[in-house]
Amino acid sequence: MSYEHVNTPARREPQMPLAKLDLSSTADEATYDETLESYKERLGVLQRTLRDQKVPVVIVIEGWNTAGITMAVHEIVRGLDPRGFNLHAIEKPTEEERSRPFLWRFWLRTPAKGRIALFARSWYSRAISEEMQKHTWEKSFKQRITQINTFERQLCDDGTVILKFFLHITREEQKTRLEERERNPLTAWLVTPAIWNIHRHYDDSFPLIDDLLEKTDTPYAPWTLVEAMDRKYAILKVYSTLIKTLEKAVRRMDEEKQEKGKVREIVKPKKVPVRRRSSPEGDVSREELQTTFSNLQIELLELQYLLFKRRIPLVIVYEGWDAAGKGGNITRITRFMNPLGYYVVPVSAPTDHDKDYHYLRRFVKHFPGGGDIAIFDRSWYGRVLVERVEKFCSEPEWQRAYQEINEMEEDYVTSSGGGIVKFWLEISSEEQLKRFRQRAEDPAKEYKITEEDWRNREKWDDYDTAIDEMLARTSTKMAPWTIIESDDKWYARVKAMKTVIATVQDLL
Amino acid sequence: MSYEHVNTPARREPQMPLAKLDLSSTADEATYDETLESYKERLGVLQRTLRDQKVPVVIVIEGWNTAGITMAVHEIVRGLDPRGFNLHAIEKPTEEERSRPFLWRFWLRTPAKGRIALFARSWYSRAISEEMQKHTWEKSFKQRITQINTFERQLCDDGTVILKFFLHITREEQKTRLEERERNPLTAWLVTPAIWNIHRHYDDSFPLIDDLLEKTDTPYAPWTLVEAMDRKYAILKVYSTLIKTLEKAVRRMDEEKQEKGKVREIVKPKKVPVRRRSSPEGDVSREELQTTFSNLQIELLELQYLLFKRRIPLVIVYEGWDAAGKGGNITRITRFMNPLGYYVVPVSAPTDHDKDYHYLRRFVKHFPGGGDIAIFDRSWYGRVLVERVEKFCSEPEWQRAYQEINEMEEDYVTSSGGGIVKFWLEISSEEQLKRFRQRAEDPAKEYKITEEDWRNREKWDDYDTAIDEMLARTSTKMAPWTIIESDDKWYARVKAMKTVIATVQDLL
Repeated sequence: MSYEHVNTPARREPQMPLAKLDLSSTADEATYDETLESYKERLGVLQRTLRDQKVPVVIVIEGWNTAGITMAVHEIVRGLDPRGFNLHAIEKPTEEERSRPFLWRFWLRTPAKGRIALFARSWYSRAISEEMQKHTWEKSFKQRITQINTFERQLCDDGTVILKFFLHITREEQKTRLEERERNPLTAWLVTPAIWNIHRHYDDSFPLIDDLLEKTDTPYAPWTLVEAMDRKYAILKVYSTLIKTLEKAVRRMDEEKQEKGKVREIVKPKKVPVRRRSSPEGDVSREELQTTFSNLQIELLELQYLLFKRRIPLVIVYEGWDAAGKGGNITRITRFMNPLGYYVVPVSAPTDHDKDYHYLRRFVKHFPGGGDIAIFDRSWYGRVLVERVEKFCSEPEWQRAYQEINEMEEDYVTSSGGGIVKFWLEISSEEQLKRFRQRAEDPAKEYKITEEDWRNREKWDDYDTAIDEMLARTSTKMAPWTIIESDDKWYARVKAMKTVIATVQDLL
Repeated sequence: MSYEHVNTPARREPQMPLAKLDLSSTADEATYDETLESYKERLGVLQRTLRDQKVPVVIVIEGWNTAGITMAVHEIVRGLDPRGFNLHAIEKPTEEERSRPFLWRFWLRTPAKGRIALFARSWYSRAISEEMQKHTWEKSFKQRITQINTFERQLCDDGTVILKFFLHITREEQKTRLEERERNPLTAWLVTPAIWNIHRHYDDSFPLIDDLLEKTDTPYAPWTLVEAMDRKYAILKVYSTLIKTLEKAVRRMDEEKQEKGKVREIVKPKKVPVRRRSSPEGDVSREELQTTFSNLQIELLELQYLLFKRRIPLVIVYEGWDAAGKGGNITRITRFMNPLGYYVVPVSAPTDHDKDYHYLRRFVKHFPGGGDIAIFDRSWYGRVLVERVEKFCSEPEWQRAYQEINEMEEDYVTSSGGGIVKFWLEISSEEQLKRFRQRAEDPAKEYKITEEDWRNREKWDDYDTAIDEMLARTSTKMAPWTIIESDDKWYARVKAMKTVIATVQDLL
């Protein structure tokens, strides 16, 4: 399903949506209870249908303090089977969350297929709060908006239905409600000086919020603005929108069960790395290479310390032909690193659990915090290599992946000052055959070679095409591919090490 | 594998092990490099063998500040394939970790089958630090020791090899090393006032550590005390012990591939809950029951608020026959709870990922923090019900589980002031048949009934036996079972609600 197909009503307000909202709406008291009960029943049925159709749903409730976020959450929950949703009350990030990419903790909270993730506040409140407090070290509010839109679009492209509600009340109403709460001994403790302080900045934050709402009101994840002066009116509006949108999603699913996505336009980069099988400097002796390598190790250790001190994250991706020497290369590169500052993520086929989520989630989970080096032994590029060649995903899915991957690398690493090194370990078909045979004959290395490796060899040409396209489409300015000619292992190790060092030096 | 079979040398020091250590040992400088290199190679080979045999390994490095923990970790890591281990540097718990059971964050860091978890400091440092600072709200150091021994025994019983090293230096040596670090501009920042403060308490903490080491030096997870005045000597001792122990583990695995564990002695509780199919107060009208239920809901909401305020965790377990009404009961019970303070954990068959770990891990992961209510829709009792009946685990495994479960409930919930409510929803075979038929006929409920449900019915008698034994062996004083006679759904809901309320009142 691509975003063209989800559609709830198109943009309603062209500009300053919040400011234009008419706040005089009230609910019909006489029919309220009955209407709400019938809504809850319909929501329960929809939840079961969406569960059976394995559709993940994200519901975001945002709004001013005291506008009724908690109340709305309570009422939604009462219409749901408690076994089918997760409620995420979003507060300040923990220290770990703060050190990771902005959207990291929200990625981890995305719903599995068929489940509902209900967010009481969300990435929006965090973006506003960051901007108001300027506590962030990352670039700008504009960047946040881009990241959020990309995040939501990627989820939606993968079949997630996203609903976002903003509960709106006036400054005066907020004041009245805060005072009411202060008078009630059960709720007085909620009204902290910090809450009053936020209230005093109502007018400053208004245009910021208005801007944010407008710029993130997309066809695939539209906002519903809720007039929340009358609490019952607000609840009914939230419920009716929920039901309308989810019913539409169910209908679409029924209609378009086959369709798996549409191809987006992709901008090809100018420079395509050239793969060469031999090692250009093949005339350097092994001993010379090993000496060079030892010196580089010391240099890298010092650079690692600087990365740590400045809290800069680094991602190193290893991709390459079977038997190209990824494992040995990683072992050598890391040998003198400080083990407290790096970790290796070995990537194998996704488990059933992984498949319940967006394919990028299991990688985002391992993205490094500031100062850490994450080394991926195989990676998200599996989507456009093995998954493409073996047809584990549909063509629209892998076609879409090039852009998704470029966005992910930018949004979660490079845009906040982190670095990415991507290695393609290239060997010739002949060299691979030689290594396969050596492995098969050596009892200590036999475990490394499987039937599958032989089968993959037969698809060499298919992989060749996929690799070329991957290199062409995902070698971006900030996250370029480096080809490591690996017929000579020591040449490969020195080149990998030099590349890492050069990248880190650029970052510092 | 049970703990009798892991065995590294039996207890060496009967009392005050640390105090009796001779610290004069030094390494042979001449052969050091060569010996270390050969150790590293052997460790690499062992790591591969253990990976192929799917043996998980836990290595704990503890010791005084400056005794060389980091150095030991670095050297071990250099002998390992970086793709096969995780390094966990244990520092102060985060706010979330602090609110969870003491061992929660360590459970989550236990290694998958075939992987190595290397701990730079561990639960031991945390226990000492808590005790020295008395920051903990839990009962006592003695309790920690019991919890730790149980934790390690359970891991070991499941096949994990555990190695623990304590690096010992004298107070004077520590002082010298701290001063050295202070003089070096690269390391001066590490020597904080807090570190000096800990140094000043060396003598106070000595007997505490000695006591801890002695009481946790078990046959299944023995300590190796390392004389660490000479750094090279320490490294060689750590390495040689590692290799000796892992080689022994490999040999044992080869010898006893079949054996899955041994049965432990289990103390039967005195009172076995009686299951009755009908509802004792079946003469109360449905309307009366519904009115009672509504009043109880309000009461529970108030109690939930008190649990939250006092940061008391509560676990509610739902087990019962298929179609006994677990889902409906949970939905009603939770309807007026504050959704921010409870969550439902639907438990289904373990995934492949779950199976890579100790079977309790996936449940411990969801154990509530202070103030939260965790409701398990099916639970760890699957081990002694479906897994026993369907032979998904071996007899020694499910026999062992009764004790493991009792220990888990005590160590992670009740011993720290939390509560557990365990419901068995009982219906008659006739009532089940009636409900199955109703479901099969109703299109809205058809999804609830599967082939498997019919198959399970045929094993009614096997389940009957397993249920009786479960109730008898796991109904403990602090975590008793409550039988909910569920032929009448509203009777069942009222009884469940009353039980939860009574339990919470006891806790407050």
